[in-house]
Amino acid sequence: MKAFDIAVLTTGDELLNGELADTNTGTIATALSHYGYRLRCSLSVPDQEKEIEAALSYLTQHVQVVIITGGLGSTGDDLTARAAARATGQRLAINEQALEMVHSWFRSRNRQMEPSNERQALLPINARPIQNPLGTAPGFRLQHGACELFFLPGVPNEMQAMFEKTVLPSLQQLHPPSAARQQRSFKLFGLPEPKIDALIPYQKLPEGVEVAFALDYPLVLVKLRADGEDADQKLDQAEALLQLELGEHIMARGQETPEGNVGRLLINANLSLSLAESCTGGMIASMLTSQPGASAFLERAAVTYADSAKLDWLQVPRPLLQQHGAVSEQCARAMAIGLRHATGTDLALSITGIAGPDGGTAEKPVGTVFLALASPEGVHVKGYQFNGDRAKVQRMSAFMALEWLRRFALRLQDNFRKG
Amino acid sequence: MKAFDIAVLTTGDELLNGELADTNTGTIATALSHYGYRLRCSLSVPDQEKEIEAALSYLTQHVQVVIITGGLGSTGDDLTARAAARATGQRLAINEQALEMVHSWFRSRNRQMEPSNERQALLPINARPIQNPLGTAPGFRLQHGACELFFLPGVPNEMQAMFEKTVLPSLQQLHPPSAARQQRSFKLFGLPEPKIDALIPYQKLPEGVEVAFALDYPLVLVKLRADGEDADQKLDQAEALLQLELGEHIMARGQETPEGNVGRLLINANLSLSLAESCTGGMIASMLTSQPGASAFLERAAVTYADSAKLDWLQVPRPLLQQHGAVSEQCARAMAIGLRHATGTDLALSITGIAGPDGGTAEKPVGTVFLALASPEGVHVKGYQFNGDRAKVQRMSAFMALEWLRRFALRLQDNFRKG
Repeated sequence: MKAFDIAVLTTGDELLNGELADTNTGTIATALSHYGYRLRCSLSVPDQEKEIEAALSYLTQHVQVVIITGGLGSTGDDLTARAAARATGQRLAINEQALEMVHSWFRSRNRQMEPSNERQALLPINARPIQNPLGTAPGFRLQHGACELFFLPGVPNEMQAMFEKTVLPSLQQLHPPSAARQQRSFKLFGLPEPKIDALIPYQKLPEGVEVAFALDYPLVLVKLRADGEDADQKLDQAEALLQLELGEHIMARGQETPEGNVGRLLINANLSLSLAESCTGGMIASMLTSQPGASAFLERAAVTYADSAKLDWLQVPRPLLQQHGAVSEQCARAMAIGLRHATGTDLALSITGIAGPDGGTAEKPVGTVFLALASPEGVHVKGYQFNGDRAKVQRMSAFMALEWLRRFALRLQDNFRKG
Repeated sequence: MKAFDIAVLTTGDELLNGELADTNTGTIATALSHYGYRLRCSLSVPDQEKEIEAALSYLTQHVQVVIITGGLGSTGDDLTARAAARATGQRLAINEQALEMVHSWFRSRNRQMEPSNERQALLPINARPIQNPLGTAPGFRLQHGACELFFLPGVPNEMQAMFEKTVLPSLQQLHPPSAARQQRSFKLFGLPEPKIDALIPYQKLPEGVEVAFALDYPLVLVKLRADGEDADQKLDQAEALLQLELGEHIMARGQETPEGNVGRLLINANLSLSLAESCTGGMIASMLTSQPGASAFLERAAVTYADSAKLDWLQVPRPLLQQHGAVSEQCARAMAIGLRHATGTDLALSITGIAGPDGGTAEKPVGTVFLALASPEGVHVKGYQFNGDRAKVQRMSAFMALEWLRRFALRLQDNFRKG
């Protein structure tokens, strides 16, 4: 089975003027990678018939599969079907099967069809429609020379459902994945990329294992890759070496997230948690509760922006606030102690700082952040000076808090094992 | 001045296997658009010398400016300079000016340079280095035929700083922007795209005004565009018509965000706010506090996951919780009343619901959400049934809460004007 190439083409002016980030490429890329396929390139062009046509003409000559998203809606800027017809030298016609799909979508919801929705069934003459279970726009597939084209709507959940239900199975039938390149990825926190690079034991890695890096602030992603029959075995060895040198910095592996891992560790350790966030404004709580099942460990969280909230819910003494200020080691400590007293959770974590852009002083510049963790072992407090703008300071603060929780739960686990 | 084309090329395996979303294209696209330029296409290829070389060869033949990000780091998978040398037929050499930039970066921070950092000065022989104020990797520019190439690192904040400081001014010198296409964009909430399309008075729009749509769940983006000398005037007319038909659904315009607008409206109306979030887990607070100056209106927020938090901080009566459950109209009402009593803020907004995937019942399926707003006017409560997975239910809930706050503040403003 010879190797073959897949490309993604996303269409939409909004992807090229900065209004919207393209998430479809990432969704498709993740799924392809999961099933052993590799994406050769991704391309974005504006909602213009000529641009879409030019991109399709180029791609059909260079790859064997093109997945196109966007431009199948009912409004006037939805021009993909016309561009597809031109690029493949076909005329457009109402596709009866597609028309019935549009009609039945409205019927099944007792909703009235707008006349503009009929346009969604106007497809290149040789197109085979693809059912859209979540929206009105049918997709379609076309063959052109040696290239197979799949056209999907741009709305992310519709695109994803159709990709998984129709495109992926067709792909597996057309081109069963060859002995795929294996990859393991690791999300590291707390060391800059060159430091991590210097700690990787390149000399000891099995032959053929490649190392690659990427940044997802404040995480550094390290990826180990290998090809061939013994790829798994080589990667096992490489992973063990990475674990030895850098294990303590690994917050998550593969598709795991740091917040998901922290949640699981807290649940496994049977630790309940409460949070008092000031400078992060709810970001830590929001990250932890984006994961299903967060109620198993998160008792509550407070975003205590005003002093009154710190006095009242966290019982921070007023003289302490007056003497040291809300952004201080003393206040962070008092917040954690007061929170733990109020909630009775095993762990109470507090964070207070200056995220900026305003509020900084010579003594406490923007980026000054204090973290405190109250636990049955006592209270641990530490001050940090983080760099960057408001978004970066908030994000770094939130990850540092997650890292404190991760290390606490891990240490408990280790002590338990040793004990 | 004839029109010219700009392309962005992003490099990195992580962009094509779904591990990382490409944010650089969006950043560059937004800035170009702001300064009157249009991006012709964006392309992503893996960290492979041949792929990068092929993409550069193609782009230099089709556009006049290429902005390349990624692959300038110090690790082994940073291959962009080599690919650039091959694509432009040049050899690589240590660039003394670039080497001094790397050295001085480490010197100024009293940090030790890793030997691998020297590689970052190995550039095509005709390259002119671009200073990187935030990291070790210098960028560079190259001319090839009629095409100007700008190479920047992939780390977003480094890329952005160098783009703004060096690339944009060079671009303005090389190709002053022509009478650019004007665009106005609007973020609408509460109506699906076909409903909005049906309400747009196409017949009344001035000739030459185009309408385009995009989705950023749960928002629908509507864009009005026009070319030429009188573009501004035409867009004024079109905007007035849109305002007339759909004004109440517009949550934000242009670069504004819904959360930024809500914050500004609350500050202007001199309204203080407290939040009690259950199913959204801090998302509303996190959105509002991502904006600078949120402390001017947000007194505090509570993520009251456990019943104990609702009993204690929000004074929800225990019998009410037992009788109606935490996800109920009664509980939402009691949370808002209790919160307002506890905090003394003008507005107290509460939200409770089932975000899923677990916790749904026949009577209260996943997506059941209750919102309540306590104000000097009394308490308003309403139940919703939202569709989708956990992320969608949480996001829809958060936007609905923002919409309630926006409408309350606007109505107050209108009453004040009328009174």
